[in-house]
Amino acid sequence: MQKFNVGSFSKSSLTHSNRGMSFEDDINLTNEYYNFNKIALVYKKPTPISVSKMDYTNNIITNARFIKKSTTDYNGVYKGYYIDFEVKETANENYFPLNNLKDHQMVHLDSVLFHKGIAFIIIKFTSLNKIYFVLYEDFKEYLINNTNASYVPIDFFENNCLIIKEKYTPRIDYIECIDIILSRKRDYEKVK
Amino acid sequence: MQKFNVGSFSKSSLTHSNRGMSFEDDINLTNEYYNFNKIALVYKKPTPISVSKMDYTNNIITNARFIKKSTTDYNGVYKGYYIDFEVKETANENYFPLNNLKDHQMVHLDSVLFHKGIAFIIIKFTSLNKIYFVLYEDFKEYLINNTNASYVPIDFFENNCLIIKEKYTPRIDYIECIDIILSRKRDYEKVK
Repeated sequence: MQKFNVGSFSKSSLTHSNRGMSFEDDINLTNEYYNFNKIALVYKKPTPISVSKMDYTNNIITNARFIKKSTTDYNGVYKGYYIDFEVKETANENYFPLNNLKDHQMVHLDSVLFHKGIAFIIIKFTSLNKIYFVLYEDFKEYLINNTNASYVPIDFFENNCLIIKEKYTPRIDYIECIDIILSRKRDYEKVK
Repeated sequence: MQKFNVGSFSKSSLTHSNRGMSFEDDINLTNEYYNFNKIALVYKKPTPISVSKMDYTNNIITNARFIKKSTTDYNGVYKGYYIDFEVKETANENYFPLNNLKDHQMVHLDSVLFHKGIAFIIIKFTSLNKIYFVLYEDFKEYLINNTNASYVPIDFFENNCLIIKEKYTPRIDYIECIDIILSRKRDYEKVK
C-alpha cells in the first residue's frame, strides 16, 4: 500500500537523488535545510480535510475530502519577520499565466502585505530553467497597472525580480533574496 | 452524515451561542475577528494526515490517519512580527501539569524564540476562570530553574504573566498582551 503524507514529508526525502523531484520537493528540501541549520523556520501548511466518517476503534479516517486552503502553501519566521509565500511553475517561455494563481492565494498575500509581513511568490520557468523571487508588492503593482491582464510577461520578471540560482544545498536559496530585500528596505528607511 | 472540518471551521460558528463552546473555539473566533477587522492575520494550522487509499474517481479519501503535528497549533503575523502559540486548559486550581504540553510543541516554540518570533502559550485555568498570556521565554526560564518539575504552580503565572480578561468580542483579546510586550521591549531597547 503506497503511502503519501499531506503537508509534511518524510526525512528520507533528504537522501533522495534529485531525479524525478518536483520543484515543490526542492523547496521542501530547502526549508528542511533552513530549519535544521537554524537559518529560518519555514513549514508547508497541511491541506485541510473535511472528515465525513471515522473508524474510531482503529483511529482511521474512512471518508474525507480535501478542502480548499484559504491561505498560501508556506509560512514561517526569519530574523523575527513573518514570511509567507506561494510556489509556482510554468512551462511557458514568454509569460506567467495568471490562472496559475488562485484568488484566495492573492487575497491571502494581500493580507500578509497589509500586516507588514514579507509576501512573495517563487516562480520557476521550467523550459528556461529560471527561477524568480517575486515580491508580492511588485507583482500587485503590475496587476493594478494592467487590470485586464491574463498573464504577466517574462520582461516583468526580468526587470523587477531577483533571480534565484539553483544550488546543490540549499537547493533554492530564497533567503538570500530576503536579505537583499531587507537591506534595501533599511537603506530606504535611512534616506527617508 | 455529520461533518466536521479539521483545521478550519465554518463561518456559521460566528453565530453560535456561547453555550457548549470550547476554549479553542473562543480562540478561533478571536482569530476570525482579528482577520476580519484587519488587526492581525492568524490561522489554526490543519492537522496533517497520511493517506493510504484514495477513490480518485470521486476524489474521496477512503483510508487515512492523522499524523503528529511537528509544530504548534497557531501562527500568523501582527505588525510584521511573526507570532506562534499553543492554547491549553487545565481544571487544576493550583498548578499547570507539564504533560499538557508535548515535547514537539516545546521544541517548536524554542525554535520560534531562536528566530526572534513572538512565542507564547495561552493557558486557561477553567475552575478559576482565569486566562494567562504566558510568554514562552518566561516559561522556559522557569523550566530551566526547575529541571525536574512536573507542573508549574499558579504563583508563577500570577507573578510573571499577563492576564487576559474574557470579553464579548473579541473573546480572548491576546493582541492587547502582545502590544504590552512590544512596548516593554521598546522601552528596554531605549534603556540599553
